[in-house]
Amino acid sequence: MNVLLCGDFDEHEALEWRQALTAAVPEVNWWSPEQARQAPHAVAAAVVANPPPGQLTGLPALRLVQSLWAGVDRLLTDVTLPADVPLARMVDPAMTAAMVETAVWATLTVQREFHRYAQQQRASRWQVHPQRRADECPVLVLGQGEMGQAVAHALAALGFPVSGWSTGSGTADSTHHRPAREPGATSAVQRLSGDAALHQALPLTRVLINLLPLTPRTTGLLNAALFNALPAGAAVVNLARGRHVVDEDLLRALSNGQIGHAVLDVFAHEPLPADHPYWLHERVTLLPHVAAQTDLRSAAAVVARNLRALRDGQPLQHLVRRERGY
Amino acid sequence: MNVLLCGDFDEHEALEWRQALTAAVPEVNWWSPEQARQAPHAVAAAVVANPPPGQLTGLPALRLVQSLWAGVDRLLTDVTLPADVPLARMVDPAMTAAMVETAVWATLTVQREFHRYAQQQRASRWQVHPQRRADECPVLVLGQGEMGQAVAHALAALGFPVSGWSTGSGTADSTHHRPAREPGATSAVQRLSGDAALHQALPLTRVLINLLPLTPRTTGLLNAALFNALPAGAAVVNLARGRHVVDEDLLRALSNGQIGHAVLDVFAHEPLPADHPYWLHERVTLLPHVAAQTDLRSAAAVVARNLRALRDGQPLQHLVRRERGY
Repeated sequence: MNVLLCGDFDEHEALEWRQALTAAVPEVNWWSPEQARQAPHAVAAAVVANPPPGQLTGLPALRLVQSLWAGVDRLLTDVTLPADVPLARMVDPAMTAAMVETAVWATLTVQREFHRYAQQQRASRWQVHPQRRADECPVLVLGQGEMGQAVAHALAALGFPVSGWSTGSGTADSTHHRPAREPGATSAVQRLSGDAALHQALPLTRVLINLLPLTPRTTGLLNAALFNALPAGAAVVNLARGRHVVDEDLLRALSNGQIGHAVLDVFAHEPLPADHPYWLHERVTLLPHVAAQTDLRSAAAVVARNLRALRDGQPLQHLVRRERGY
Repeated sequence: MNVLLCGDFDEHEALEWRQALTAAVPEVNWWSPEQARQAPHAVAAAVVANPPPGQLTGLPALRLVQSLWAGVDRLLTDVTLPADVPLARMVDPAMTAAMVETAVWATLTVQREFHRYAQQQRASRWQVHPQRRADECPVLVLGQGEMGQAVAHALAALGFPVSGWSTGSGTADSTHHRPAREPGATSAVQRLSGDAALHQALPLTRVLINLLPLTPRTTGLLNAALFNALPAGAAVVNLARGRHVVDEDLLRALSNGQIGHAVLDVFAHEPLPADHPYWLHERVTLLPHVAAQTDLRSAAAVVARNLRALRDGQPLQHLVRRERGY
């Protein structure tokens, strides 16, 4: 099987991916865009990481586009993307685990005010603040795909009251909405969906974690109206996409204390410009889009499973429903 | 029942404790040291938080000394402490939960290098580093009492390979060495004890978490020999007592990179002097002894259970074995 491998990675990353994929699926010929142009009829699938628009056109035998990234919002803006070819997103267990780690770390940071102790350390100031218990710190997780569910269950296991919200668009989808994988998970996560449930939940939330896919419906959802519906001093953790947040609204809410602290991993423009007010804001913990990096080894194994399913005529996993946007 | 309440807390703390204890055990008369001096024969028990030496002498009817703190190392240095009166330490479920939170946060901080991203934020620098997986980051928890076990199981549930080590002094003690309470915990924690097992485990450890009681045997255990037995760049998290650490050895190991990062909550002298090199060390995350504060409500409930057991002739919980030191 000949598979086109293309994306916006640099030479070193391209080499690493080619090595990992070759190890995972040795029976595949990994073709560059140049090779694909020379024999377009022989390309059966494409494994892509935000390729330049137009790169996937003119491949008449293409039967699968497999993204190496979980978020396909940028890929879906490519109007030349063949409409009738199945598109799969990456659901990498190692990336989900990394997202759980970051979300747990961010939640503990704001619950226990470790960011405040870090400021005190830089001032050599020894000062103890009252300790808030996890059960006094309700968490609302926006997004209940693989990552949102895993994050919700990990936090519930640590004693946080956790609600998990999904937009309620589309019907239930077993590919995207799996039950929690931990067999021993006894802690309940309250499941919510739809706008009314969201607006009922916000006033009871101390930590809001965003793990939504970026779609026209969710763009700008973290705005002044949402921040004002939270209790004063609540925390916002954005691990999804920068464009979920209306930055001027968040900056205003941070200034007036409506939002007590924000942990931000993603931004409308990345890298975040060096003069952006988020960088040095004392109420912002900023990460350079590292909440969950793809792990080459486990991601390559996911690609291998889908390519072999394609070869064997078996069902493909993690297919994107384009009308829904993820 | 008349119970002496005394300790090194200030007026505000004393009032808060008195209120919490009165709510939990309304049938008890809470006496100050002055009241106890006026009717020493009528004092049945003492609830203490590191009281001044001598405060517990001359109370002939005393049948229980209940500490409000988990660590009784300072209390045990009081040579006037009545030798034949049972001494109980605090085992507060809310404090254990807080310790789990801090240990998980500290482990994630060093595994995922969030301290490094915090430094980059202060320099407005966007730079991504490779992401280490939890399964590549073995954790060794020193101390397998209530807290050590709870920490070990929480980290194992997040995917870390975890070993739990106890000194091996004394025999197993069901009061202090309970099985993990999470009924769904499926992840195994490797149990180790004794010096030989420790020295075998150290070279395989990326994160060392200290939750030992402070005893003559464990004082200074975190020294140059131990640091050098760890792989270069390993992390040390001390949440127990400052005197477990030989500070000059740790500072040297941090300087030469043998220890990549340290999270320190406790110090030989507290508050840590403002000119101590730990404060501004770029490889140190410093907390002002807040890893696990006692929660008044749940601690008062623990005191209530032991006082009622005393009254009813039932077994007392969490008794200290003085020859062992905890």
